[in-house]
Amino acid sequence: MAGSTFGSIFQITTWGESHGKAIGVVIDGCPAGLSLSEEDIQIYLDRRKPGQSQYATQRRESDTVEILSGVFEGKTTGTPISLLVQNTDQRSGDYGNIANVYRPGHADYSFDQKYGFRDYRGGGRSSGRETIGRVAAGAIAAKILKTLGIRVTAYTKAISTVVISEKAFDLNECANNAFFMPDAAAARRAGALAKEAMASCDSLGGIVECVVKGAPSGIGDPCFEKLDANLAKAIMSIGAVKAVEIGDGTAVTTSTGSQNNDCLSYDENGSYRKLSNHGGGIYGGISDGDDIILRAHFKPTPSIARPQQTINHNGENTEIVIKGRHDPLIVPRAVVVVECMTALTVLDALLTSIPSRMDKLERFFQI
Amino acid sequence: MAGSTFGSIFQITTWGESHGKAIGVVIDGCPAGLSLSEEDIQIYLDRRKPGQSQYATQRRESDTVEILSGVFEGKTTGTPISLLVQNTDQRSGDYGNIANVYRPGHADYSFDQKYGFRDYRGGGRSSGRETIGRVAAGAIAAKILKTLGIRVTAYTKAISTVVISEKAFDLNECANNAFFMPDAAAARRAGALAKEAMASCDSLGGIVECVVKGAPSGIGDPCFEKLDANLAKAIMSIGAVKAVEIGDGTAVTTSTGSQNNDCLSYDENGSYRKLSNHGGGIYGGISDGDDIILRAHFKPTPSIARPQQTINHNGENTEIVIKGRHDPLIVPRAVVVVECMTALTVLDALLTSIPSRMDKLERFFQI
Amino acid sequence: MAGSTFGSIFQITTWGESHGKAIGVVIDGCPAGLSLSEEDIQIYLDRRKPGQSQYATQRRESDTVEILSGVFEGKTTGTPISLLVQNTDQRSGDYGNIANVYRPGHADYSFDQKYGFRDYRGGGRSSGRETIGRVAAGAIAAKILKTLGIRVTAYTKAISTVVISEKAFDLNECANNAFFMPDAAAARRAGALAKEAMASCDSLGGIVECVVKGAPSGIGDPCFEKLDANLAKAIMSIGAVKAVEIGDGTAVTTSTGSQNNDCLSYDENGSYRKLSNHGGGIYGGISDGDDIILRAHFKPTPSIARPQQTINHNGENTEIVIKGRHDPLIVPRAVVVVECMTALTVLDALLTSIPSRMDKLERFFQI
Amino acid sequence: MAGSTFGSIFQITTWGESHGKAIGVVIDGCPAGLSLSEEDIQIYLDRRKPGQSQYATQRRESDTVEILSGVFEGKTTGTPISLLVQNTDQRSGDYGNIANVYRPGHADYSFDQKYGFRDYRGGGRSSGRETIGRVAAGAIAAKILKTLGIRVTAYTKAISTVVISEKAFDLNECANNAFFMPDAAAARRAGALAKEAMASCDSLGGIVECVVKGAPSGIGDPCFEKLDANLAKAIMSIGAVKAVEIGDGTAVTTSTGSQNNDCLSYDENGSYRKLSNHGGGIYGGISDGDDIILRAHFKPTPSIARPQQTINHNGENTEIVIKGRHDPLIVPRAVVVVECMTALTVLDALLTSIPSRMDKLERFFQI
Repeated sequence: MAGSTFGSIFQITTWGESHGKAIGVVIDGCPAGLSLSEEDIQIYLDRRKPGQSQYATQRRESDTVEILSGVFEGKTTGTPISLLVQNTDQRSGDYGNIANVYRPGHADYSFDQKYGFRDYRGGGRSSGRETIGRVAAGAIAAKILKTLGIRVTAYTKAISTVVISEKAFDLNECANNAFFMPDAAAARRAGALAKEAMASCDSLGGIVECVVKGAPSGIGDPCFEKLDANLAKAIMSIGAVKAVEIGDGTAVTTSTGSQNNDCLSYDENGSYRKLSNHGGGIYGGISDGDDIILRAHFKPTPSIARPQQTINHNGENTEIVIKGRHDPLIVPRAVVVVECMTALTVLDALLTSIPSRMDKLERFFQI
Repeated sequence: MAGSTFGSIFQITTWGESHGKAIGVVIDGCPAGLSLSEEDIQIYLDRRKPGQSQYATQRRESDTVEILSGVFEGKTTGTPISLLVQNTDQRSGDYGNIANVYRPGHADYSFDQKYGFRDYRGGGRSSGRETIGRVAAGAIAAKILKTLGIRVTAYTKAISTVVISEKAFDLNECANNAFFMPDAAAARRAGALAKEAMASCDSLGGIVECVVKGAPSGIGDPCFEKLDANLAKAIMSIGAVKAVEIGDGTAVTTSTGSQNNDCLSYDENGSYRKLSNHGGGIYGGISDGDDIILRAHFKPTPSIARPQQTINHNGENTEIVIKGRHDPLIVPRAVVVVECMTALTVLDALLTSIPSRMDKLERFFQI
Repeated sequence: MAGSTFGSIFQITTWGESHGKAIGVVIDGCPAGLSLSEEDIQIYLDRRKPGQSQYATQRRESDTVEILSGVFEGKTTGTPISLLVQNTDQRSGDYGNIANVYRPGHADYSFDQKYGFRDYRGGGRSSGRETIGRVAAGAIAAKILKTLGIRVTAYTKAISTVVISEKAFDLNECANNAFFMPDAAAARRAGALAKEAMASCDSLGGIVECVVKGAPSGIGDPCFEKLDANLAKAIMSIGAVKAVEIGDGTAVTTSTGSQNNDCLSYDENGSYRKLSNHGGGIYGGISDGDDIILRAHFKPTPSIARPQQTINHNGENTEIVIKGRHDPLIVPRAVVVVECMTALTVLDALLTSIPSRMDKLERFFQI
Repeated sequence: MAGSTFGSIFQITTWGESHGKAIGVVIDGCPAGLSLSEEDIQIYLDRRKPGQSQYATQRRESDTVEILSGVFEGKTTGTPISLLVQNTDQRSGDYGNIANVYRPGHADYSFDQKYGFRDYRGGGRSSGRETIGRVAAGAIAAKILKTLGIRVTAYTKAISTVVISEKAFDLNECANNAFFMPDAAAARRAGALAKEAMASCDSLGGIVECVVKGAPSGIGDPCFEKLDANLAKAIMSIGAVKAVEIGDGTAVTTSTGSQNNDCLSYDENGSYRKLSNHGGGIYGGISDGDDIILRAHFKPTPSIARPQQTINHNGENTEIVIKGRHDPLIVPRAVVVVECMTALTVLDALLTSIPSRMDKLERFFQI
């Protein structure tokens, strides 16, 4: 099957390889009448742009987005929005040495098995550049959600063994460090760790956490289209993610029912309130109006400049040292990708959840 | 949107509530010519049947499956297979006291918000009985996979803090204990822990691990329909799952590239071989032919016979003690559900992966 | 692919063969809170029931529907509604002579080619009984549409060469004749024609027309999911339909722009009004609020009790005389099927059209 | 819902408006290893290019296609193929007078109702230029089909009342006249009729017929995804089509079973043969290996330079005379669109039909 399309109502289709002419995305099903400019999207793309810190690839791409359709006189028309980003800094020469060799930890072998061959330049379709389309589309989803009072925020929770402290938590700090960590002290320790890894030609993993505030209750479906199931798919579809948690996640395993259940109580205004949020705002696959919380676990960048044992197309065992311009950590640049995939998932679930009640339907058609 | 349908080529649609007349599933897209009897399915259903151990609900349901369509003279015809299980042991009276109260840790509130009201008897559609359809369909998927040389096996990896030992690992042990643990000693410790929890009117969580052996390389798609992404969705769509891991999962976070990369080497027959399998058999969303490995983290059963603070429909704060017949641990009965959701996902990915290469297509149409 | 599922938000999955144990449908995505009883559905099923006139098969099936899930205390819960009809009058013996022979005009050969074999009893899945699920689900769709002020009405426009007269058009007449024709005189002539055909062991075709009144403007999408495109698919998916027309249909071919364009004018209340409706209420794939009009062309029943040249499985040319209990005309019993497929299509398009405008979305989430 | 995506395995997503920056399509699910150049696609686009005859719009667009992704070293890689055509001859000034007026026979009003406003320049998304993406994608589908021995051919069957003669039928004639008619004499008469219509500021409709040769039996599914149902949707989704016929189409209505049934006979080689093909190669929704035949009925171009009664946005009745560069007949340029939509539908049905039998599946996985 195809596989480059995500969402059922707010539906995006991404395309493009690392070293092709361009990379892009088509957004279909965007409601008409949303104010939209290239600037709205560029702000998000700039957050994943390479070359912004010493801990990121020095590849230089401006990653400038162009709107080709679907916007007229500054507003979305309801028809497909085509977004395009030119690939400008393609040094294919860098990849000559990997055309014939399978890089450990990469998708080279599995791609060759599936398709018979591959565009080996920069990982082709399995490159991190594939996320450009996700982020460009996610910027639009996030703008719609914001209009409806819903904010999606992701940040780095851990770089390798350095975990942020709940006490020190300050979202404003994210902009002040190269790791998007909401904890200045943790960011400093992460920097030290990262330098050490780079010095030893190695790489690090980490955790991105994402919180959705303001989502109404009733989003998501009871069975296979649970909101958490779709979030898990969205997040696991990001390259290098190896685990996804909702709410307390893996910690529930060693908890007990009496500890893990979120007890309920009306607040002073008679509104629904939970005394805790172990569930992460989703029960039976449906949001309850509380904060939705998830975490993505990223593996260390597989491209390392250290000799690794591998094989080539000629049937020989060999060694590879991966040069080129690679991120020693994926996590900082992946933060906005997690945020965007979450926004896309929540928006689509929100739109699909509208016709769940006859009473609301009847009122909608009286609008 | 609908939400009760899973898969794109081998597509299943489940229906039914805990205390309705029956529960069932329609399997559409099953290849014709597969030998299929009710016995093939019953074996799987019996693994999730209640009342089989002192650690499971004492609700007595025979859960006998009936094939209503799609099978003719012992073989599948290629048309929809409708499977039905009657609900026989419905003691709705047990649930009278929860009609008006929201149970902590359950989906009562979120269902009411989404739909305006709910079938409160036994959790209605959010009951664990909803998995009957998944297991019945999964039994068929597993049979097809087995025919193609692919085996899916799940087992309990942990009950609360009791984790199986890799050294003691013996799949044959699963049948010998109430927890489906492949480690007799661990199962004994889990039993002690479970009795303790039951005595204190509490419940436990745990981990189910699933391994797929014999899957060919090339299954899964590079972008949103990554095999791991669809596995994550499938597993997270099981009630009570709060985290999903692929391969080394959360452990990759604190690993390094040089540790986590799976180095490659030809074996003596010139075949592809990995020196480790941290990736869990999936690279760039596509299988590499190695074992596919995943883990599901289950929360403790939310229904506990201990007073919990909650709210009712009349706007009052109140307490609830949940009686009825509930599993103090979901994990043992969930093992087969994880196995079946994995089988359904792998089979569907296998079938959708067929037309990925022109050379194979051309040869297929010469068959 | 599967193929037994229709619709994207209001989604139905049908199953069952002519001579299996039962036939049914699962409706997923039905809004919660709709009053629904078996009687609501039975009324529709009775309109397609066999044995009701001398022009229909004398097979006797009560076709009694049973609701197995998704309805609680008389209201839909928003979860899947499973409907089941037992097959009671299965005289499989009637079909013994066709197990080994391909019936001309039937799907026997193409099924065998696709699946390797088939359930030959009564046409199996290609039987007209497959429409039971469509009609049962369509009854629910029609009830929702009615609640929203939208009425779908189908009737017989022609039996072979006998076409209803626009002058004599009277919907109330449909109930008074065996052909559901809104023209008493035409029905009498059709009766004469039908008797003649039956006497000569032959069969007749005809035309069903369907009109949707009260549909709001803005339903349908501009490109592939045009409302007329989905109606065409829905109608062409009914067995024996060989052509579908929207509005003036085939007549547009010999019309001119100046004749065929529907000129516009505000009415006395300043409302949009067309001076004609050649377009059948759909422009650019989107409804304009006027009557939606379509026609389905049905071929003559292929089962005729007259010798026909054919082949058998043994590689021999042979003759077949089809006995059994067959309708000499499909059209009268197909009227309700066309009506139901139209209702299903319009409802699904209506629900998918909801999130097309930001202004409406914002107001909806303030409800 | 979205609505700009077509197909389930070979899946295309089109985007772009008549007067936007560009128009394009993303093809996802194209098998890897197909030789593909821009020339392969350009040949098809040139067949729908404007300005090629006196009977077509004089708008001058080179409609040059560019491949942006999915092709590496001359072969498809299995990843999304992004195709882009720049809009070069945009005289938006031509459309100033229609910004505020609804054109009869156009989608102006229904678009405004759905989206609140529209890109009025040249019809925006409802322009015939939207078919560029369909044709570009269809060229690839046709190339794959050709590789598998399947040829799709469309031609003009009728221009208004001028119908081709079966006797004179010669496909080679299509290239020799402006109407793509396989009958030189008919084309001459059509020319006379067209000139007459143009002289009186009017427009004409017509019929396009399409034949698929070499398709294997077994394509299509028995219920909602019948091959003919999907063809009907594909064809009806082309702007201006108001009726679709399969095989004998509307003529079946007045035929009888004994006339309309296609009798069967083994040929001298013992192969399946039909003595006629009234069914158009599809039975029960599944191909039988014979020619697949369909017809599309196109309405006359709604844009005519003759005063027509209409309304404007200010609530006033008014008159409109549509200037600009419009085709007096859509049919000649629509021939390749019908051919491409048919190719896309047949290819997708072919690919989805592969896993219908266990025996074939088992053999496929041994390839």
